[in-house]
Amino acid sequence: MKPIQVGLLGIGTVGSGTFNVLKRNQEEIRRRAGRGIEITMVADLNVERAREIVGDGVAVVADGRQVIANPEIDIVIELIGGYGIARALVLEAIAAGKHVVTANKALLAVHGTEIFAAAREKGVMVAFEAAVAGGIPIIKALREGLTANEIQWVAGIINGTTNFILSEMRDKGLDFEVVLKEAQRLGYAEADPTFDIEGVDAAHKATLMSAIAFGVPVQFDKAHVEGITKLSAVDIRYAEQLGYRIKLLGIAKRRDNGIELRVHPTLVPSKRLIANVEGAMNAVMVHGDAVGTTLYYGKGAGSEPTASAVIADLVDITRLHTADPDHRVPHLAFQPDELRTTPILPIAEVRTAFYLRLRVADQKGVLSAITSILAASDISIDAVLQRESNDGEHQTDVIILTHETQEGVMRAALAQMQALATVLAPIVSLRKEELA
Amino acid sequence: MKPIQVGLLGIGTVGSGTFNVLKRNQEEIRRRAGRGIEITMVADLNVERAREIVGDGVAVVADGRQVIANPEIDIVIELIGGYGIARALVLEAIAAGKHVVTANKALLAVHGTEIFAAAREKGVMVAFEAAVAGGIPIIKALREGLTANEIQWVAGIINGTTNFILSEMRDKGLDFEVVLKEAQRLGYAEADPTFDIEGVDAAHKATLMSAIAFGVPVQFDKAHVEGITKLSAVDIRYAEQLGYRIKLLGIAKRRDNGIELRVHPTLVPSKRLIANVEGAMNAVMVHGDAVGTTLYYGKGAGSEPTASAVIADLVDITRLHTADPDHRVPHLAFQPDELRTTPILPIAEVRTAFYLRLRVADQKGVLSAITSILAASDISIDAVLQRESNDGEHQTDVIILTHETQEGVMRAALAQMQALATVLAPIVSLRKEELA
Repeated sequence: MKPIQVGLLGIGTVGSGTFNVLKRNQEEIRRRAGRGIEITMVADLNVERAREIVGDGVAVVADGRQVIANPEIDIVIELIGGYGIARALVLEAIAAGKHVVTANKALLAVHGTEIFAAAREKGVMVAFEAAVAGGIPIIKALREGLTANEIQWVAGIINGTTNFILSEMRDKGLDFEVVLKEAQRLGYAEADPTFDIEGVDAAHKATLMSAIAFGVPVQFDKAHVEGITKLSAVDIRYAEQLGYRIKLLGIAKRRDNGIELRVHPTLVPSKRLIANVEGAMNAVMVHGDAVGTTLYYGKGAGSEPTASAVIADLVDITRLHTADPDHRVPHLAFQPDELRTTPILPIAEVRTAFYLRLRVADQKGVLSAITSILAASDISIDAVLQRESNDGEHQTDVIILTHETQEGVMRAALAQMQALATVLAPIVSLRKEELA
Repeated sequence: MKPIQVGLLGIGTVGSGTFNVLKRNQEEIRRRAGRGIEITMVADLNVERAREIVGDGVAVVADGRQVIANPEIDIVIELIGGYGIARALVLEAIAAGKHVVTANKALLAVHGTEIFAAAREKGVMVAFEAAVAGGIPIIKALREGLTANEIQWVAGIINGTTNFILSEMRDKGLDFEVVLKEAQRLGYAEADPTFDIEGVDAAHKATLMSAIAFGVPVQFDKAHVEGITKLSAVDIRYAEQLGYRIKLLGIAKRRDNGIELRVHPTLVPSKRLIANVEGAMNAVMVHGDAVGTTLYYGKGAGSEPTASAVIADLVDITRLHTADPDHRVPHLAFQPDELRTTPILPIAEVRTAFYLRLRVADQKGVLSAITSILAASDISIDAVLQRESNDGEHQTDVIILTHETQEGVMRAALAQMQALATVLAPIVSLRKEELA
């Protein structure tokens, strides 16, 4: 059987990794897919660099539209990134009847609804394993491996830059700004690290996972997004004393009245496996009603790990090429007429537990005033840590861990606590998840 | 589209879980598969119990052959277990042109070659996600998610009974026999626990994983199998002091000259995620050349976790029903003509590191005699722990961790060390894997 021909848009880090792994493991891949898979045309603005990577047997062009116009090509891989030309080319590839494989979480999180609808209309597949958690086959697990379950929640460390920074902050007791510079120096963070450190990248990925897990459209605009830029080394230390690690988690959770979709620094019990995922590694926990808790761990980024995911999608599409389009694995795991309209809950309606750090005057009655406010709001306390003030100082830290409550209720209670004369600085609050 | 009709052979723990989850989540499953999936006929020797579970809408018979003879049924689920009638029924189902889903690791490990060949001949699928690691979709990860990789090794905690026992031995410092009784009392171990505690169950599963990972036929008879019955609480304590946990691992590893396939207690660095998998949970590490190290964690057994895997296979088969048989995902991840003849290496040729515990006379020159033997065999030492002898005793324990060496070389060195007059008891040796 003739090899299936693939066109590549963008031969940067992931594109060159894809080309190299496809070549290096071509025999293994051919054995598994039942036919060869060949990149026969590459489009990249830097034609010279592209040619150096692919050598002579592959056509190299500057314009992606030539790849799309090539009638021999069945699958187009989009590895340009971003929302601009990538969106146009993906939609044109679909219109030309080509299957699409992409690593572009930003594009799908923002334009996914339009793109998946166009693909459905045309009867072609859009695969995006590489868009979430690098080489870890999490999309496949959610979409196929756990298909018997009603997924209850998904919680993941899905951004290596921020996890590296948090690991370093904890290991070395350093503050965020210092570690960010080190991360940039070592190549774990970009020159412009905004998408990563503000949690946007994690939110793109969490949005995609929520769509797969709950059969809802991608709704990135409704996600609640907080990054790690305001985190202090002192809170990491207090959390550790109380038996918790702090991780930037992307969380999608099913509730009776809707779906929670949020990214933020989160206290996680130290004994959970996910709390011990360090450096640039990723991990996603999925809890299904039949299987219980599962976890998937591996490299979340990098040339060859991401290429591994791209190629897994190529092989899937190659294998399914002959299947009736109505029966292929649907992009979003659910047949498109079946997408629900379950609302994404506003953050005030989310239920979660909290870590609070209050800097207070070292006086009688301070703790009582604070705990009264919490009690009046029906917020249960899990633990309290109160430090002795240092000699000469007349202020100290009070750290409180609460049980689960509604975010809006906590916000109101925090406003009251903040208003106390004995609370001397802005209260630090972080969300906490037991992930049991 | 009409629902696909499924026949169930055996409605014990997993069978009833499968029936219940299919019913409970039927809407979710129908949305994902694109059509309903219904168990319409059940065979079980205990017809009355079966009828209590399934109610009136489902035909219940005592003879599995009636299920196989039913022309409306496309997929047969075999959940009887064992090598006896299960083998006959699986082969007859295949001969009748029906797809088969099974959880029967023992059957496939021993008769897999015959069964997969028959299925290939007939153009039907045999799926077995439920045969390895319960609800964790590890077969799908190996067969599809990591298809871009040359898999280098697989190492898993794949028997919950033994992992529970090892966790308890470590937590409570108790010996094996004591904890086994407790495990039986709590239902984590069978009345006849032989298959579990002797490592046979883990070896069945490791054999299946080796076939998927390396594209070789199932060769259970070549696996090296050791259980946990000889493990002492004292070795767990020494390992802990040296920074290791002891787990029963199923290991399949690619070498230049063949494939290692072995099950045995193994020292693993405490900082690895897999070392922290406790109780009856399972976890499998897979290392691929492109993706690096990945890990999959979840419940390895139980009614609904295993049902989750059975149903994932049902949905896969349902989705692929219309695909060209040549292009469906091949059972063993490789097109059958492509199965290699790479040999499974005899245990003497395996390369691994070791933990040794020697009880020695507390005299000058003892350690020197031992380390000279190791040096003469080119076995490098990683660590040595020598305890002071207690007052009045004139003997002590020497614990040695080595670097990787060939097993045959170590066996010869052990024979020499055992022959020393100053070595006073049988040397305890356990294998060690860094799993980096």
